[in-house]
Amino acid sequence: MVMGSIPEEVDIAVIGGGVGGYVAAIRAAELGKSVTIVEKDKLGGHCLNYACIPSKTIIHIADLFYSATHSQNLGISGSLSIDAKRMHEWRISVSQTLEKGVEGLCRANGIEIVKGEATFLNSNTLQLTNGTSLDFKKAIIATGSVPSSLKGFEFNGRNIIDYKQALSLDYIPKSIAIIGAGYVSVEIAGMFAKLGSSVHVIARSDVLSRFDPEAVALVKKRLANLGAVVHLNAAPSSYDGKVLRLSSGEEIPAEVVVVAIGLVPYTDGLELHNTKVAVDGRGFVSVDSSLQTTDQNILAIGDVVGEPMLAHKAIRQGVIAAEKASGLNSGFDNIVIPAVIFSDPEIAIAGSLDAKNVKKFPMSAVGRGIALDRKEGFVKMAYDDDNIVRGIEIVGQDANAMIAEAALAIEMGATLEDIADTIHPHPTFSEAVQEAAEAALGRPLHFYYGKGSR
Amino acid sequence: MVMGSIPEEVDIAVIGGGVGGYVAAIRAAELGKSVTIVEKDKLGGHCLNYACIPSKTIIHIADLFYSATHSQNLGISGSLSIDAKRMHEWRISVSQTLEKGVEGLCRANGIEIVKGEATFLNSNTLQLTNGTSLDFKKAIIATGSVPSSLKGFEFNGRNIIDYKQALSLDYIPKSIAIIGAGYVSVEIAGMFAKLGSSVHVIARSDVLSRFDPEAVALVKKRLANLGAVVHLNAAPSSYDGKVLRLSSGEEIPAEVVVVAIGLVPYTDGLELHNTKVAVDGRGFVSVDSSLQTTDQNILAIGDVVGEPMLAHKAIRQGVIAAEKASGLNSGFDNIVIPAVIFSDPEIAIAGSLDAKNVKKFPMSAVGRGIALDRKEGFVKMAYDDDNIVRGIEIVGQDANAMIAEAALAIEMGATLEDIADTIHPHPTFSEAVQEAAEAALGRPLHFYYGKGSR
Repeated sequence: MVMGSIPEEVDIAVIGGGVGGYVAAIRAAELGKSVTIVEKDKLGGHCLNYACIPSKTIIHIADLFYSATHSQNLGISGSLSIDAKRMHEWRISVSQTLEKGVEGLCRANGIEIVKGEATFLNSNTLQLTNGTSLDFKKAIIATGSVPSSLKGFEFNGRNIIDYKQALSLDYIPKSIAIIGAGYVSVEIAGMFAKLGSSVHVIARSDVLSRFDPEAVALVKKRLANLGAVVHLNAAPSSYDGKVLRLSSGEEIPAEVVVVAIGLVPYTDGLELHNTKVAVDGRGFVSVDSSLQTTDQNILAIGDVVGEPMLAHKAIRQGVIAAEKASGLNSGFDNIVIPAVIFSDPEIAIAGSLDAKNVKKFPMSAVGRGIALDRKEGFVKMAYDDDNIVRGIEIVGQDANAMIAEAALAIEMGATLEDIADTIHPHPTFSEAVQEAAEAALGRPLHFYYGKGSR
Repeated sequence: MVMGSIPEEVDIAVIGGGVGGYVAAIRAAELGKSVTIVEKDKLGGHCLNYACIPSKTIIHIADLFYSATHSQNLGISGSLSIDAKRMHEWRISVSQTLEKGVEGLCRANGIEIVKGEATFLNSNTLQLTNGTSLDFKKAIIATGSVPSSLKGFEFNGRNIIDYKQALSLDYIPKSIAIIGAGYVSVEIAGMFAKLGSSVHVIARSDVLSRFDPEAVALVKKRLANLGAVVHLNAAPSSYDGKVLRLSSGEEIPAEVVVVAIGLVPYTDGLELHNTKVAVDGRGFVSVDSSLQTTDQNILAIGDVVGEPMLAHKAIRQGVIAAEKASGLNSGFDNIVIPAVIFSDPEIAIAGSLDAKNVKKFPMSAVGRGIALDRKEGFVKMAYDDDNIVRGIEIVGQDANAMIAEAALAIEMGATLEDIADTIHPHPTFSEAVQEAAEAALGRPLHFYYGKGSR
């Protein structure tokens, strides 16, 4: 490294220290490259600090609180309360622990971390906000996304907030209106309802409209049980700080309005026009299967390159991009990117249900479902005429932990027989995956589909 | 079917309506065979009525109760109590629901159920305790096992009881001493400790002596945290109804003594000497890989044919035996029979850790572990020099749900790359499985193993 007035040079500059970015940095460092991460906020990015991790932390607390106070039938009685300040402190401490962990990992791997923003001067040089410039052989753009804003409901950081701010409240709002009905909205709707808020969800059309209606119906039923009101085919018209008015005229009391209508790719300040990087009409950076942009020195990963905007997609792309930037011949050839909605019940899916054959097995036929009073949900197994598994959906308790089997099965080209003949331990919810495969093969065990049905 | 004085004849007689037996009956019925199950007690057998299901039911309740009352750091405060009678009613209702479910499945599949005991008159005929006899083409013995008794501590059904009775108490004993330290003992020790009992475990040598010491150490640490006292290298000498004395002279207050020192195969009353069925020195019925005994008309499955005495092994054997007895050429060719200990933390294993290479990845490096305050545990990945996965151990939260992936991986001959390159969703504990594989390949992400280490 040459210091002084001559700019520093690294093999690989990573712009953005979120899960995609720091993983790319670690992988590149393992391959012997000198690596610098430029991060303007916190290592770990949105996922660790504002989104995935905080939401799963609070969802867990809400679930535990609600389950324990609603299990009189199991013999648990008494009363609990939520100390919102302590809950918030825990949620913050979790992110801090993870952020420090990432920093430690980066240091151990010899990665330099620069706090600030980066601007491309050309296809080899970044201008940093600390005043220095950084020459690179390869750059990896991992700048992620930001919440979409809604005209008339501009974020004010106080009572019109995004989902990240909703996960950073140190109090539980008495009433909350959530505009948008995608997975983020549904997750926090159930969460706040369990914590005691009065919750309204404003859906432009329907809830989780891109997911399996049969799974979504269970989530909607549960939201209704929790007292959360879903407004279908609805549009917000105004908010006066106390009441959200819908275009239908309906008035919804709302101490807080959360706007969660999606994410847009974030490339502000990069000045990509100084490079050969192309973006598409929606603002996503265009990449090929090796995460290479149209600039031969620049790669891009994660939310900024497109859907699905999921942390584990960014992680996998980070590994691939780092390998590619380090001279290996890696490409993103995964068949499936599993997705989990941490709703109640959880919905997890790997692959597509859009196959010729789909067999459903209900969780109500699983011993553990009955034992734990968690009978809602099912497994759907989608397969082609050669019995190759094309998609698996798991709805219910533990779905988030079980979908990995489905992803591995599809990546490995598993047949129904592979799954049906693998012993799944009893009593677990994973038995439903095996039973769905057995049923698809015309040899169901714990569910009767009618005579001779396949 | 010919009625009257001429004995009834069926294609397949199944002796024992436990999980192995009723599954065999269903599979045989699907293959067009006439089937009769002879069951002396309850359909679903020990697993559904007395063992697996009741234990997981109460363990779940104990976990929920304990977690909710020990999560002040997460912001949950207040107090709960256990209504032992309601808990017991729930546990009974679960078994009743499952028993009825099994009965419904059998009826739907056209299976006849005879209540009573069966005795072999010869290799084609059973004498039933209802006075009739039953001719069969093939019989499947699925009579299971019973708890071993201990000299000087004979079961009295009151305060010297087996684990099944321990799971059927409608009160929570103030003090409980558990003789034996296998997985059953460890499961109920943690369960009663969480429910508020003073618990002592009497281990002849060590706790879970056949399992990975590193996993067992976590369970022992947790038991100690819960206030359960483990007595190593100890032997009970006497019990006066209030105090259990050890041979060391130590005195342990014990309202109830649970003897859980293992299971022995149950063939009482079958009069196997009237057939060509051979048993081994320990009383297990000898079978080949198709579950065929030494009598060509008789097959046997489940606990009665040997270790491991696990419900899901019996289920798989039930399918195989039914197919074999129905004329198909099926054999038990599974590579792995996964095992789960529902201890705290859970220990789940598929395959063997006794391979040339073993890589460990800690749950404390998994985001979900930190978020949920469940950092204890790890994944161990055992593999050979060709990177073929030979065994996976998962210790920690959700292990029971995640071990299915491991079982499928090994059955399909997965390599480390297959697992490492499959996207595991974030944030879930299943990421630890992927990370262990990545680490084994020398490309760890969220844990630093030292420079250039594999």
